[in-house]
Amino acid sequence: MRPSGRKLVELRPISIETGVMAHAEGSCLIRMGNTHVLCSASIEEKPPAFLRGTGQGWVTAEYGMLPRATHSRNRREAAAGKQSGRTQEIQRLIGRALRAGVDRLALGERQIVIDCDVIQADGGTRCAAITGGWVALRLAVSKLLAARLVTSDPIMDHVAAVSCGIYAGQPVLDLDYAEDSEAGTDGNFVMTGAGRLVEVQMSAEGSAFSRAEMGSLLDLAEAGIAQLVEAQKAAVS
Amino acid sequence: MRPSGRKLVELRPISIETGVMAHAEGSCLIRMGNTHVLCSASIEEKPPAFLRGTGQGWVTAEYGMLPRATHSRNRREAAAGKQSGRTQEIQRLIGRALRAGVDRLALGERQIVIDCDVIQADGGTRCAAITGGWVALRLAVSKLLAARLVTSDPIMDHVAAVSCGIYAGQPVLDLDYAEDSEAGTDGNFVMTGAGRLVEVQMSAEGSAFSRAEMGSLLDLAEAGIAQLVEAQKAAVS
Amino acid sequence: MRPSGRKLVELRPISIETGVMAHAEGSCLIRMGNTHVLCSASIEEKPPAFLRGTGQGWVTAEYGMLPRATHSRNRREAAAGKQSGRTQEIQRLIGRALRAGVDRLALGERQIVIDCDVIQADGGTRCAAITGGWVALRLAVSKLLAARLVTSDPIMDHVAAVSCGIYAGQPVLDLDYAEDSEAGTDGNFVMTGAGRLVEVQMSAEGSAFSRAEMGSLLDLAEAGIAQLVEAQKAAVS
Amino acid sequence: MRPSGRKLVELRPISIETGVMAHAEGSCLIRMGNTHVLCSASIEEKPPAFLRGTGQGWVTAEYGMLPRATHSRNRREAAAGKQSGRTQEIQRLIGRALRAGVDRLALGERQIVIDCDVIQADGGTRCAAITGGWVALRLAVSKLLAARLVTSDPIMDHVAAVSCGIYAGQPVLDLDYAEDSEAGTDGNFVMTGAGRLVEVQMSAEGSAFSRAEMGSLLDLAEAGIAQLVEAQKAAVS
Amino acid sequence: MRPSGRKLVELRPISIETGVMAHAEGSCLIRMGNTHVLCSASIEEKPPAFLRGTGQGWVTAEYGMLPRATHSRNRREAAAGKQSGRTQEIQRLIGRALRAGVDRLALGERQIVIDCDVIQADGGTRCAAITGGWVALRLAVSKLLAARLVTSDPIMDHVAAVSCGIYAGQPVLDLDYAEDSEAGTDGNFVMTGAGRLVEVQMSAEGSAFSRAEMGSLLDLAEAGIAQLVEAQKAAVS
Amino acid sequence: MRPSGRKLVELRPISIETGVMAHAEGSCLIRMGNTHVLCSASIEEKPPAFLRGTGQGWVTAEYGMLPRATHSRNRREAAAGKQSGRTQEIQRLIGRALRAGVDRLALGERQIVIDCDVIQADGGTRCAAITGGWVALRLAVSKLLAARLVTSDPIMDHVAAVSCGIYAGQPVLDLDYAEDSEAGTDGNFVMTGAGRLVEVQMSAEGSAFSRAEMGSLLDLAEAGIAQLVEAQKAAVS
Repeated sequence: MRPSGRKLVELRPISIETGVMAHAEGSCLIRMGNTHVLCSASIEEKPPAFLRGTGQGWVTAEYGMLPRATHSRNRREAAAGKQSGRTQEIQRLIGRALRAGVDRLALGERQIVIDCDVIQADGGTRCAAITGGWVALRLAVSKLLAARLVTSDPIMDHVAAVSCGIYAGQPVLDLDYAEDSEAGTDGNFVMTGAGRLVEVQMSAEGSAFSRAEMGSLLDLAEAGIAQLVEAQKAAVS
Repeated sequence: MRPSGRKLVELRPISIETGVMAHAEGSCLIRMGNTHVLCSASIEEKPPAFLRGTGQGWVTAEYGMLPRATHSRNRREAAAGKQSGRTQEIQRLIGRALRAGVDRLALGERQIVIDCDVIQADGGTRCAAITGGWVALRLAVSKLLAARLVTSDPIMDHVAAVSCGIYAGQPVLDLDYAEDSEAGTDGNFVMTGAGRLVEVQMSAEGSAFSRAEMGSLLDLAEAGIAQLVEAQKAAVS
Repeated sequence: MRPSGRKLVELRPISIETGVMAHAEGSCLIRMGNTHVLCSASIEEKPPAFLRGTGQGWVTAEYGMLPRATHSRNRREAAAGKQSGRTQEIQRLIGRALRAGVDRLALGERQIVIDCDVIQADGGTRCAAITGGWVALRLAVSKLLAARLVTSDPIMDHVAAVSCGIYAGQPVLDLDYAEDSEAGTDGNFVMTGAGRLVEVQMSAEGSAFSRAEMGSLLDLAEAGIAQLVEAQKAAVS
Repeated sequence: MRPSGRKLVELRPISIETGVMAHAEGSCLIRMGNTHVLCSASIEEKPPAFLRGTGQGWVTAEYGMLPRATHSRNRREAAAGKQSGRTQEIQRLIGRALRAGVDRLALGERQIVIDCDVIQADGGTRCAAITGGWVALRLAVSKLLAARLVTSDPIMDHVAAVSCGIYAGQPVLDLDYAEDSEAGTDGNFVMTGAGRLVEVQMSAEGSAFSRAEMGSLLDLAEAGIAQLVEAQKAAVS
Repeated sequence: MRPSGRKLVELRPISIETGVMAHAEGSCLIRMGNTHVLCSASIEEKPPAFLRGTGQGWVTAEYGMLPRATHSRNRREAAAGKQSGRTQEIQRLIGRALRAGVDRLALGERQIVIDCDVIQADGGTRCAAITGGWVALRLAVSKLLAARLVTSDPIMDHVAAVSCGIYAGQPVLDLDYAEDSEAGTDGNFVMTGAGRLVEVQMSAEGSAFSRAEMGSLLDLAEAGIAQLVEAQKAAVS
Repeated sequence: MRPSGRKLVELRPISIETGVMAHAEGSCLIRMGNTHVLCSASIEEKPPAFLRGTGQGWVTAEYGMLPRATHSRNRREAAAGKQSGRTQEIQRLIGRALRAGVDRLALGERQIVIDCDVIQADGGTRCAAITGGWVALRLAVSKLLAARLVTSDPIMDHVAAVSCGIYAGQPVLDLDYAEDSEAGTDGNFVMTGAGRLVEVQMSAEGSAFSRAEMGSLLDLAEAGIAQLVEAQKAAVS
């Protein structure tokens, strides 16, 4: 019943290849089916101005999409002269989500910038960016630990994300583009390795939804994120 | 225990004054305690380009804040040369929320622009903008009906919004600035007059949250939005 | 003979409500008939860079207009990505006019920013912004005096403004929009409480004008500004 | 008593060299002492959008300054990414002033763009731009007449401009930079060949001014502009 | 003697993987050693405005670099709000180079946009972008031929590029970053499959160079480009 | 056979008038036939940030064109809000070329900005800007020497530039606009007074070119630049 033939509770094939960008302190190429996102983590020893003198660090994210990541070509944001509202919303979400898994005092006064660039898009790019971004972050922080630049591990837990939605009247896990463009309600869920919630963003594209529908999507998200966390563990081990 | 002395389930005093902008097809000044937002609805007979020839209309929103709506002065976005990511995220939310209550075919090929300008800010400005924006929209659409420019009412239901959060370990309704800046988890909830969900946006500012905590915030939101819908009814009657 | 039925030398009804923006050091809502402008004064303890070390302060102004302050909606300048030439010209005028009434050495090395935001426009918004901006400035400076942050009063005199023009062949005081759009010649006049001139800006929209016509407009302006100064006195007392 | 040794009522040496830009329909290099401005007129057969179908034409102006026209180098506006408020204010003034001398119906549905670029600045650049811009405009319109693209002359009269101010307590004509930076009050005056007023912009830089002072500056301006009109006549004959 | 241990006339290992971006009409990932560039070709059936009605098509290019393609992170151009001069210069070169190999009449009134995004940079990114961009272009045009949208092949010849320079006093082929940053003179050479020149850009970074040195670099370029053309042939066959 | 009647190896008439901008440390108006460029050199005692503490100075250039320097009016870049790719490419070339003739250690920690503004364009503006820019630079550096702000002359040699191209099948020197717009291949050549190469930029506008054609253009450039260097010598002596 799903265009891809997947079961309702089935994720797309996951692949997380690390070390793909030689200069970055941490990097990976995450593939969720046909959605491919390059994630890198760059350590900057200077924190943002508002944290100077606080002893705390920061994690922030930027998001982009290659012009031909999509079915038809999108205008390059650098040529347009600004990032779209959608781009800004997504990168704010990624940064907020990843910070939820970080002890910023343990990180110390430095900043880690996570760049997430979509090479190919088939729905769920922001979730893939969070899941892959965490891997890049984990690898970069491990370098800080190995170099004894931080003494206790600033990473408190895994953070991963998945989208779910009501497609053709059924709750389904990990929407691809074909499903996403038809879904009446969809949501993005960010959770920790311990299964606690970090972000919930649900939106009625067509008609409003009930608390029961919300609950069924949360059930799917919990199941999906548990698998994503396993994939993260495999990638960074 | 709340800085304002309110009970956990108590909204701030609501006031919705209509007709405050003489030129707009619909307008109101909504006050949620010390948060004051001017909302106007402007009807444009031309739909956005992507809807031409579809028979459908559009509702969109823009959000702004006077530089001194806040404790210290913020830079004017027009002088800075761009809208912040936060502003864009909020105005996208307002537009999406209001469209959820509109039958866009019944509206016909026209666009209604909802402008929400914060005169004074004390937390919850995006929620006040949605609740007040709906009133401005309702008034403008009623003019279309009175002028027989539309024949069946494009407004399907009320749409209103409130924020809730975990403050000092307790779930509280309608956060003001003092609470919002301390809350470990908070969320914005948009619902219809019939009590169905339109948008849920929850975020762990400090530590991640459980599904039980999420449920208690939803309970508060349901109770609060029911009162906001009553205030909307009183304002437009 | 005037569209509003006013006499040639008659101002529109004036109302100046103070204290309307809780966070600002000084604020007012000035209404000149259907022209409504929110004015706030924000004290910043840091002067602009070019005054550092001079012992002198600065007063500057910013001007904006809500998109639906006018008959048809104007594009939001923050969304357009820049302030129009008209906006910049107006805010430069407001700042220059208000500085003419301030002893900048007595003010000391700080800056006061006057924000003037037009809520509703019916002609004469820049003049209303100057008259109301002075009230906001006066209230903010009084706070500095009360807090003994300045020792002698930096406000040397009132500053107020009015427009006059040749409408249907007659010199008229305080043009509203209907008159302004038809006037052959119009001007904006800024004067002190003592009746001295601060700014004169006259422009031939249709045909050029004579010195005699200029004189008759100055006569009207003197009469009008005297009344505006009385309204300022009442507002700040 | 003037830094340049000029008499109070003495203009700087005027020189208007025409035909200096081979491609332009009209052009001149105007020199008022050490202030040098290149002015060109470009005819575009398409009027601005707001005039289509009205039978009327338009005259507009743009103003610029070479980075090293001034004592110290100014940032190039094209590199800064925007025109300053001062630039926009000046080019709006030039356009408005020149339109006052044009019969826009006789011009027909076309636009003439006057570009005024300051090569060297020593005060009074906007006035020189108006006086020189009129010459460029006159030459371009004469080409339209010669080519029988217009049948009756759209130029109704000369338009020229000069600045005057109170310098060291005395009213002086045609301020240079040394005087302008010290003047307590100054003004820019635009008049027609017939001696009628087109624009008056007076500003109290230091202390407010009286109507008597205003009158004495107007007297100077009348005398000066009469000479500038003679120079224009000589240049275009 | 070269940091990489390569011989003076030795290219880095070349790899061209096609079909890497599922949505693009043509695409490849080109690797010249540690320089990796993703190239895609997007066919747009609408030509640029200046070619409408001429029967001719257009090929244009855009260039970007992921923020962490380099040793230290560069600011994202979309966030900075503009493309740097370097970026614009490079993308103009790529477009010009590729157009030199295309019969624009045979292409017909359509545009092909080549996007070249540097994933990892180690010198020579613009040359890799041209060589890889040609492959993406070739694949896209082959689709037009296969679909009979064009009848005769618009691709007239291969176009490929390589950099050469004087490093440590010796002419060397295909500079990597370590060599490029030390080279006294370097150049980018674009040639056709037939060995004719399309672009030559040589620049004295340190001291000026002689015609003899120029000749030796051209010799190297000819040899290198012949191998690149072979790699292109292998990739598209 | 050339539209201008010039011989194949004939430059346009050269004129270099110095001291044309009173405020600049060095300036000239260079005329190559109908191409006229104003060049100024501005000394700034502060070097760019990346050179602080290195003991070295910098020379940079900015390029602009008056809107009506060309046959039809071009949009003013300051009004458009950005410099075009062409402008940036040209000003980067000018700066690079002039730096090749400067000993930056002898210059010391200061910056010289060369502004090149095209007053009238008839092809070859970037070459004229380099040749004239060197004169402005030379004059400014001579002031530094005269004032003993530098002790040994930082100018190592002349730098001048000319364009050549294949026009109507023949190699010709110093293309004017009529030739440039028809030329199949053209190039810009920058050389020192000693006849060594600084920059070579050749481009096949129509069909690719051979090394023999490249050689014949270099021969022409050598001859032309020798004459330009003589003109520079005459101008600065």
